[in-house]
This record gives sequence, C-alpha cells and structure tokens, in this order.
Amino acid sequence: MPPTVEPDPGNAGEGSTAVDADVIVVGGGVIGTAIAWRAARDGRTVILIDPETDDKASLVAAGMLGPVSESVFGEQDLLNLNLLAISRFPSFNEELEDAAGHETGLRTEGTLAVAYDSGDLAALDRLTAFRHSIGLQAERLDARECRRREPFLSPATRGGVYAQGDLSVDNRRYLAALKKAAANAGVRTLKGHACEAGEGWVRAMTPGRQDLEARHVVIAAGHATSAIDGVPDGVRKAIRPVKGQILRLRHPKNIPPVLTHTVRAIVQGHDVYLVPRADGELVAGATQEERDDRDVTAGAVHDLLRDATTAVPAISELILAEASAGLRPGTSDNGPILGPAETERLIIAAGHFRNGILLSAATADAVTALLKGEKPNLAWAPFQPERFG
Amino acid sequence: MPPTVEPDPGNAGEGSTAVDADVIVVGGGVIGTAIAWRAARDGRTVILIDPETDDKASLVAAGMLGPVSESVFGEQDLLNLNLLAISRFPSFNEELEDAAGHETGLRTEGTLAVAYDSGDLAALDRLTAFRHSIGLQAERLDARECRRREPFLSPATRGGVYAQGDLSVDNRRYLAALKKAAANAGVRTLKGHACEAGEGWVRAMTPGRQDLEARHVVIAAGHATSAIDGVPDGVRKAIRPVKGQILRLRHPKNIPPVLTHTVRAIVQGHDVYLVPRADGELVAGATQEERDDRDVTAGAVHDLLRDATTAVPAISELILAEASAGLRPGTSDNGPILGPAETERLIIAAGHFRNGILLSAATADAVTALLKGEKPNLAWAPFQPERFG
Repeated sequence: MPPTVEPDPGNAGEGSTAVDADVIVVGGGVIGTAIAWRAARDGRTVILIDPETDDKASLVAAGMLGPVSESVFGEQDLLNLNLLAISRFPSFNEELEDAAGHETGLRTEGTLAVAYDSGDLAALDRLTAFRHSIGLQAERLDARECRRREPFLSPATRGGVYAQGDLSVDNRRYLAALKKAAANAGVRTLKGHACEAGEGWVRAMTPGRQDLEARHVVIAAGHATSAIDGVPDGVRKAIRPVKGQILRLRHPKNIPPVLTHTVRAIVQGHDVYLVPRADGELVAGATQEERDDRDVTAGAVHDLLRDATTAVPAISELILAEASAGLRPGTSDNGPILGPAETERLIIAAGHFRNGILLSAATADAVTALLKGEKPNLAWAPFQPERFG
Repeated sequence: MPPTVEPDPGNAGEGSTAVDADVIVVGGGVIGTAIAWRAARDGRTVILIDPETDDKASLVAAGMLGPVSESVFGEQDLLNLNLLAISRFPSFNEELEDAAGHETGLRTEGTLAVAYDSGDLAALDRLTAFRHSIGLQAERLDARECRRREPFLSPATRGGVYAQGDLSVDNRRYLAALKKAAANAGVRTLKGHACEAGEGWVRAMTPGRQDLEARHVVIAAGHATSAIDGVPDGVRKAIRPVKGQILRLRHPKNIPPVLTHTVRAIVQGHDVYLVPRADGELVAGATQEERDDRDVTAGAVHDLLRDATTAVPAISELILAEASAGLRPGTSDNGPILGPAETERLIIAAGHFRNGILLSAATADAVTALLKGEKPNLAWAPFQPERFG
C-alpha cells in the first residue's frame, strides 16, 4: 500500500514537485554503496539510505575472494557467478582506488588450502577433484611444499592445494573506499533505514524525511531486506540472518607476519580461514550460526582460536585485537537475489550471504545495467527474485 | 642521592616552608588507595600519586579472596598472613561501603574446587589434605554433590572440595569505592608517577610539581616499585612483573547465571578460576606469564576458554565481553614486602603478587600502624624489606 506522497508543508521549499533523486539505494554496506557509486558515476542523482551502524556484515567480513572455495558441489550457477565476479574485481577495484584516492589492500598471493589429519586430507582431495572437474587450476602440494610456502604451518599438516587465482581485500578499507568514491561522485547519504518501499518510493526513518521518491529504488539492505514492507513476500521469506563471528589478530613487534597467503585449513573436520592483511593484521573466521544476535560468544571465540592455533601454532603468540559478530544475508538456496521486484522501478540486490564483497563489483554492474534498461550479464539469470514466487 | 628541595620561585605562594603533606603515597591501585584512605581517616594530610591508567593489576584481577587456595605447601608465613587478611576483610569492606556510599559486590558463597579427571582429583585431594593438616575446613564432595550445588558443571566432573570461608569482591567496584572513600576523607590525588624517593621526599612526574616532601613516603607502586630510584636495590631486584590475562563474560538475556560459587577447576592439569559477580558478570582467569607486556594473546584467551568451557560447558553460550592483561607485582619468594626501607620515613608496601585485593585491608592496617610508630600485626614480621638485603 503506497503512501500518498504529498508536498510536506514543512518542506515546501525543497522542490517537492519533482522526484527526490534518480535512484534511491537502501543499504550502506558494500553492495548498496557500490551500486550508489556506480549509478552516480553514470550521471544519475543518487540518495543512499544508510543506517551507519558499525555491525554491518561488510565490516565483520574477512574479505576473502575465493570463487570456488565459497561454492559447493551442485551449486554450478553460483560458481559461474562467482567466476564472473572475481574476473571483474581487479579492474573495478583499480577504478575504486583511483576514485577514492586510497588503497583497499588487495592481495594476490592466492589461497593455500591445507589439511590437518587424514580425514581432512580426504575432504581436501574431494575439493581438488571438483576444481579440476570444472576446469579450474588447483595445484596439489605435499606437506613439505606447504610448509616451504608457509613455514609457520603446523608440522602435523598433511598436505594442501594452492589456488592461484584467489584474491583478498581489506573489507573495511574497501567499504571506506566505496563510501569515499560515492561521496566524491555526488551521492547524498541519509542516515536511517527503510520501513517500506514500492514502485519508485521509499518510506524511511531518516532525519527530517519520511517519504522519498525516485525513478528507481534499489533495496540492498542485506538480511534487513526481509523487514521492509513492499518487498515481495517470497523474497522476504527467502532471506535470513546467518551469524558469523571473526577474530582480528595483530603481530607483536618482535614477530614477523606468520602467513603470506590466505590459508584455509581443515582441522579435524572444522573449516577455518586465515586472511593476512597488508597492514600486518590477520583475520580468522568464521562461524556460521542460525542466530540473529550479534553477541561475541565464548564458544565461538574458543573454536576459532583452537582451529587457528592448531593449523598455525605461532598464532598463539599474536595479539587478539578484536572479536566481532555480524549477520550475513543468507537465502534459502544460498544464491543472491538480483532483479526487479514485480516493477522495473523497485530493484532487489540482496541475499549475498558469504559472497558480498566478491560479488559487489558484478552486482553494481548488473544494477546499473537494469537502471539503463539493459539486461545484466547472463550469469545473473538464475538469481532473479521471481524464483521465490 | 636526594635532591635539594628548595622553594620553587614559581610556586612561592604555595606554602613552601612546610612539608607538602603528612603522607605521600605512591601508587593508585588497591594497596596505595587503601593506605591513603586509612591514613586520611586517621586525620593525616595525604597526597596520592596515581598514574590513573586503566591497566592496573587491581583492575585486571578477579577479586577472588581465597587465603588457602592462593598459598602453596611450604608457604606457611604467607598462609598466616592471608588468614589474617581474610578475617579482617569483611569489617574493612563494610566501613569502606559506608565511607564510599556504594557496594563493592562482596560475595560469601564460598569456593567450590572441582577436578575434571582422575589426575586432577588426585591433585585436589592433596590440597584438601593440606587444608585439613593446618586445621582449615574443607568439605570433600562427590561428583553428584558438586553438580547438585553447581548444576552447569561438566558431567565429567570427578569430585570437589567446598571451602566455606572464601570470599570474592568485584575488584573494579572495590577500587572505585576506595577512591571515593579516599577523596571523601580529603586525600589529594596527583596524576603521575614517581621516579625517585628517599627519606620523606619524592621526585615525581606530576602536572606542575616535581619534588614533594612529607613526613612519610609510602611506596605502593606494584611492579613499578622496581623502577623507583631510592628504593633499596634488594627490594627493586626482588620485584618482577608477572603477566596475567583474564576474561570477563556476560550472560545473554535468556541464560540464567551459570555459577553461584567461585569455582576453581583443575582441568587436565590446568588451573582455571571462575568468579561470578553480583551483576551477572563471570570472570575467568588467569594466566601467569613471565612477561612484561600487556598484550592480550590468542594463546592465553584460547587456553582460558578451553579450560573454562571444559569445566562448565554452558560458558560457551556466554558473551565474551572483555579480555585484558595486567602485570602483578611478583617477588622472588612470593611474599609481599612491607616495612620501612632503611629509614622510618620511607615505607615499602609492594610485591603483593596474586593477593593484592585480599591483603589490601591488612596492608592498610599495617602501614597506618607504622605511621603512628606502632608495630604491625606479627603476621607481617616475615615480610620486611630487609629480607632482600
């Protein structure tokens, strides 16, 4: 039920006869901000509605960009999309660094997946066979070679696989760069969140304004998308928060960086990833919990530290600088949701689950195509909102 | 080499002919602040030199007051002192709460020591035999009875011992109360730290003043006592920082307090203590490391969480609110150092190691006795500075 958007007498001088902007983007994480930046860069007037909280999933992420490791057997469509996304990422990131005037900490050393015991090695071998079956490079390494490349790996390491094409980025620097680039391109940010949206309009809790109109409204509100009235019910039901907890570790002055590559370790059946940053930070993650709170729990921190220090014992000596929790936007089929919701003027770009940063560039491309009336890359075809009825 | 204390022309109006105070206390932890409060309460003018940092050992402590559990076989003198201290604590604390106008969170449920495996049980039995041998109560409980008293203890708990007389206090509320009581009694606090001290004088880094004079100077600077010139060399060499890391856990809304008693668990040879607070916090500690940094490390947090969640699995569900590190003032014989240093006008009250809060009341009594020219309780006799030559 769209509200009647009438000129507010109190705001009469603010040009109430026209729409407020060409595009209103709801959500200030990497997805929403990337879309806002690119739309503004194309010459559109853009309003970004951003809650500006510090518990965004974009801020809790590790910034690991591994197209294969984040997809599983049978998710071929998602894998295709991730491969599109990783091929697009470097050039997008380069433009972003230029537009923002600072670096995002992109690292290109690749991922070393390692196995701790024989069961872990069997699991890793299955993943390698899968990579090979779809024509991807994945170099099998024996234990000695793993430890040659990463000398602080546990002596118990049984073997590993090196994936050359994987990237990582400092998620916080990346989001900060997107915000800077968006502001530089003229995006107007309103602090707040949307309650309801429809064909070219948004009802939002922002200072001074409640009802906003635009040619296009883009909902990129992560898991909170499910709380916005006017988003199709099927989409709202398909999105759920999936809690993730991560740790940020720092090196004391006398300890050199313990890792060079992103390391994904399988430790007695548990997965842990360890992402080194250019600034010496090491991110360890992540839990995956069907909960909607953001509490940092003793059990999760324990399990992450146990797995991290088992895989790389020297991590015991690092400083535990931060433990944090975020809510990823999971969907019922693990795929993102991108496309018009019943009307061309209301676009959904949500449900990116564990792949938000990886998919951000490709998502911005797809949404800017839709804004121009063009079709997004075909890899997006399986991920339209209609699939949820 | 004492400085020549001359009237500073810049401070000429500030009464430079007399001493600055009856007593100058160096150190704003529980020891120094308790001494300052009690000296002022006796009608003396008191200056407290306090670095006012938030990494004091007094702030990182758990506030567990267990006279026996903190002493070991063969440390009979220390045990006697701890028994004096615990008998004095409740009345001191009551006066303190009155003087400060707020509570310190004293808890009187006692300590339940529990053992996890058969080796742990053997260690616990040795401790119980020791308690009995010195005439202390210690009630041996079977596993069923342990879990009846603390239902969240691991089903693997093998048995335990209940010590009725143990207390605990919220160390942060306790220090805050001491500061309030000191201020109410007229203690003047100068932010800074002492560099050098002698017979009735201190050279300090405080705003505006460097040289201060008093009838008596009391050095209660914890491990930093070893950095103050003028303190006898033997004392300086006997004191060393012993790093301790602790965790502060909080209960999510839907979880009731997991513990009622202070629980000391022996878990596969590791000691962990768990101290519940009146406000729902649970403190878990502590590491004991021969290091002088205050870094919170991945390894220490891991080990504390491992032992805590092994002893009480429900702790996994608690919120990890804080991990912190402090430096306890250890001494070469584990005993505190209390008494005049060569001159009656320079008194040392330092080296309280793991027992600072427990000993704070008895220490204040002993120092105020010295200020009056009286002898402290005989239990202090073995702990004079001269024992370090």
